[in-house]
Amino acid sequence: MIVSSASNLFVVGGEWKPSWTAGAAEEAEAVAAIPCSGHGRAYLDGLVLNGHEPVCECNPCYSGSDCSKLSSDCAANAGSGDPYFLEPFWMKHAASSAVLVSGWHRMGYSYSDGTYISELLVQYIRKLHETAGNAVTEGKYIIFGGGSTQLLSAAVYALSPNSSVSPAKVVATAPYYSVYRTQTQFFNSRDFSYEGDTTLWKNISKNDNTRFIEFVTSPNNPDGKLTKGLVQGSNVKTIYDRAYYWPHFTAIPSPADEDLMVFTISKLTGHAGTRFGWAIIKDEEVYEKMLDYVGLNTMGISREAQLRALKLFDVAVEGEGREIFEFGYTTMRDRWMRLKQVLSKSSRFSLQKLSSQYCSFFKRDRDPTPAYAWVKCERQQDKNCNDVLVAAGINGRQGSVYSADNRYVRLSLIRSQDDFEILINKLKTLVAKDQ
Amino acid sequence: MIVSSASNLFVVGGEWKPSWTAGAAEEAEAVAAIPCSGHGRAYLDGLVLNGHEPVCECNPCYSGSDCSKLSSDCAANAGSGDPYFLEPFWMKHAASSAVLVSGWHRMGYSYSDGTYISELLVQYIRKLHETAGNAVTEGKYIIFGGGSTQLLSAAVYALSPNSSVSPAKVVATAPYYSVYRTQTQFFNSRDFSYEGDTTLWKNISKNDNTRFIEFVTSPNNPDGKLTKGLVQGSNVKTIYDRAYYWPHFTAIPSPADEDLMVFTISKLTGHAGTRFGWAIIKDEEVYEKMLDYVGLNTMGISREAQLRALKLFDVAVEGEGREIFEFGYTTMRDRWMRLKQVLSKSSRFSLQKLSSQYCSFFKRDRDPTPAYAWVKCERQQDKNCNDVLVAAGINGRQGSVYSADNRYVRLSLIRSQDDFEILINKLKTLVAKDQ
Repeated sequence: MIVSSASNLFVVGGEWKPSWTAGAAEEAEAVAAIPCSGHGRAYLDGLVLNGHEPVCECNPCYSGSDCSKLSSDCAANAGSGDPYFLEPFWMKHAASSAVLVSGWHRMGYSYSDGTYISELLVQYIRKLHETAGNAVTEGKYIIFGGGSTQLLSAAVYALSPNSSVSPAKVVATAPYYSVYRTQTQFFNSRDFSYEGDTTLWKNISKNDNTRFIEFVTSPNNPDGKLTKGLVQGSNVKTIYDRAYYWPHFTAIPSPADEDLMVFTISKLTGHAGTRFGWAIIKDEEVYEKMLDYVGLNTMGISREAQLRALKLFDVAVEGEGREIFEFGYTTMRDRWMRLKQVLSKSSRFSLQKLSSQYCSFFKRDRDPTPAYAWVKCERQQDKNCNDVLVAAGINGRQGSVYSADNRYVRLSLIRSQDDFEILINKLKTLVAKDQ
Repeated sequence: MIVSSASNLFVVGGEWKPSWTAGAAEEAEAVAAIPCSGHGRAYLDGLVLNGHEPVCECNPCYSGSDCSKLSSDCAANAGSGDPYFLEPFWMKHAASSAVLVSGWHRMGYSYSDGTYISELLVQYIRKLHETAGNAVTEGKYIIFGGGSTQLLSAAVYALSPNSSVSPAKVVATAPYYSVYRTQTQFFNSRDFSYEGDTTLWKNISKNDNTRFIEFVTSPNNPDGKLTKGLVQGSNVKTIYDRAYYWPHFTAIPSPADEDLMVFTISKLTGHAGTRFGWAIIKDEEVYEKMLDYVGLNTMGISREAQLRALKLFDVAVEGEGREIFEFGYTTMRDRWMRLKQVLSKSSRFSLQKLSSQYCSFFKRDRDPTPAYAWVKCERQQDKNCNDVLVAAGINGRQGSVYSADNRYVRLSLIRSQDDFEILINKLKTLVAKDQ
C-alpha cells in the first residue's frame, strides 16, 4: 500500500524471494487453498483437523469436512447482519488486500504523535468520504472505536450533562436498532436514562431544558429509510448512525453534514469482525469527551485492527475508488430485485416501500438496495409474522427486537450468496404454497 | 503456527514461491529493512516520506531522518509502561511471529461456534498459564477484553448488585493504578461508586451487607509487591489485576487461584498496542455478565487482535515455553541491578524494598525484577520528588497519580533499552552531584 516496490536489495535474479516472511506467506496461502467446496472457508486461526490443516468452517446449511453436503431441511439464516456479501470482492483483490504483520509491529500504547489514533488512517477515511460523497469531514474531528458499538455509547456519555439531578433522556424512533436501548440501560449511568420512543416526547415544550439525546439511523436499520431526527427543542442532541449510508445500500442525495455521525467498517468493506468504527464530530468538546471515553474504556483501538483497516481502505480508494461501491450496489440490487419479484406474487407478505432516488455518487436516479427486507405479514391472523416465516424455514428477526409490531420481520440481505439463495428458495416455496 | 508445512502443490523446484501473498511479504520486509540506526523503527502504517518509504519513528531523545542524532539535553522518558523491553525478543523470532492476514479473514461477527471468542486462543492461554505456573485455569471461564482495561470495568459491572438503592463501593489500597478510580468515576453508574482507599473501610462490620469491590494489583503497580485484599466481610468481592504476575517481573510462589483474575498481553509479550486482555473467572454468573458487558460495549474483540495474540502465544509456548520468560527475567534483572547499584550510592533516594523469593517457575530463589522503580525522596525538603527528578532530566510519574505521597515517583523500567540507558545516565549524574 504505502510502500512502493521494495529496493533492489531484495530482488534476486529479477525475482524477489521472501526471507523471514516466507513462513507466514506460505501458511496463509496453504489455508486459502483449502477449497471447502465454495461453501465454507478455512481460516488461519481455525480449529485444526488431524494436527495439521485447519478445518473448513461451512456456511449455514452446508456440512461435511469439505462443506459439500447441503442439508435440504435446513432453515435459511437471514438473521444477523454479517456482511459476507462483500467477501467475493476481497477474494478478487487477494494480493492488494493482504497484510503481513511483523512480531514487533507497534508494541507500544501510542502512535508517534502520542495518540491512540493512526493519523494516516484518518486521512484515508476523509478520502473515502470524499469519494463516496456521503459525509462532510472538513473541519471536523475523527475518532475511532471498537466498531460503531463503542462509539454509540461514547457519544451518549459525551452528550450527557454531568448531572445526576437531571439525567439526559435517550430516545429513538421505532423501528430502531435495539443496541441504542440495551446499551443505555446496561451502562445505567447517573448521567442518562433510556426513555423510550420519540413519539412519547413529541409535545415537549420548546423551553424544556432537559437534555434529549436522539438516536437516528439513516438509512434506518431495519427498514432502509432515510430518516431525520424528530424531537424538537433547544437542548436536543442527535447521534446520527450512518452505518448504512454508502452506495451499497442507498442513494446518496447529498453529503451528510450532521454534528455527530457514526460509521463502521462493517457495512463499508464488510469486515464486521475487525470491530472498527469511527465518528465524525463537529464540536471539539464532544470530541474530547469521546476520546476520554474510549481512552478509559479500552485505551484506544487495536493497532492490528487499524492496520487492517488501512490496508482495506487502501484497496477501496484504488483508482477512482468506485469499484467497491459498484460491486456492493450491483450485488445488493440483484438481491433486492429477486426478492421483490418473489414477493410480488404474494398478497400475504409485503416489503417496505422504497423509491428510486437521485444519487450524487452514481450521478443518476437509482433503485433502492436496502441491507434488510422489512417484511410485513398482511393477513389479519398472522399477528406474529416471525412464527409464519419460521414455520416456512426462514429465520429472521421479529419486529419486537426493533420495538416494532410483530407483524414485521427483518430479513438480512447482506449475508453470503449461499444464505441468500436458500432464503430465496424458501420464500418461493412459501409464496407458491399460498396461491 | 497451526498449519504444518504446506502441501507439495505450492512447492516449485524444491522451493516455495509466494503468489498472492508476495506483495504483502515484500512490503513488510522492505519496511523492516529500514535501519533507523537502531534507535527507532519504521512501521508499515507509518507516515510516508517522499511518497514511498515510511519514516523512521525515533526513540525518545533520538532524531533525524535515520534517528542517528542523540540530543544531549533531552529528559529521560520513564513515564508510561510501554513494554518495549520485549521488542528484541520478537525481532529475534521474526519468522515465527509474523502473520499474514488475508483480505477475507473472518469478516463475520462471530467464530464458528457463534461466540466472539476464539476457542483456540483460549486453549493457548490455558497452556501459557500452565507453563508459567502462575494461574489455575482448570474449571474456570475465560473471557477476552480490549486490553485488561475493558475487563476491569466489565468486572465492576458484573460484581455490582443491580441496585441503585445500595450501589457497590469500589475501593483500592494506595499506592494503586489510577484507572481503577478514574474508570469507575467516569462511567458513573447507578450500580456502583468509587469510595476511596481501603484504609477508610477497615472497620466495617462483618455483618454489613454493602457490596464492596476491591481492586488488588499483585504484583502491585507501582511498587511490585505481592499484595492481597484488605477489606473483610461477607459481601466483599475482589478483582485481582494479575497483569504483572509473570516470571519477567516477580517470583511466582504458587499459581494464583482467585475467583476473578485479569491478565493482559501487554505485560506478557509486550504488545500493549494490541489491546488484548483476558479474565479468568470462577463463577458462571459473573462470567455471563462480563460477556454481556463486552458484547454491548464493543461486540467482542477485534479478530485481528485475536489472530495476532494467537501467533505470538504460539511462539511463546514453543519448545518448553521458557524462552520468553527467561528473556524477560534476564533483561529486567539486569536493569534492576544496575538501578540499585546507582541509587545505592545515594542517601537522598531510596527504592522499594523487595526481597529474593522462591519461584516455582525457576525452581529456585530469585531476585526481584519489578516493572517499575518506586523511588522515594528521603530528604525532608524534597516534598515533591517529581520536581527533583524533573529538574535532573528524569520524567517519571508522581506519587499522587497512584494516590500516594508526592515523596514518591514511579519510574518505568520496561521501556526500550535506549530509554533505560538514558535514565541510568541521568540518575548517575544526579546522584554524583549530591555527593
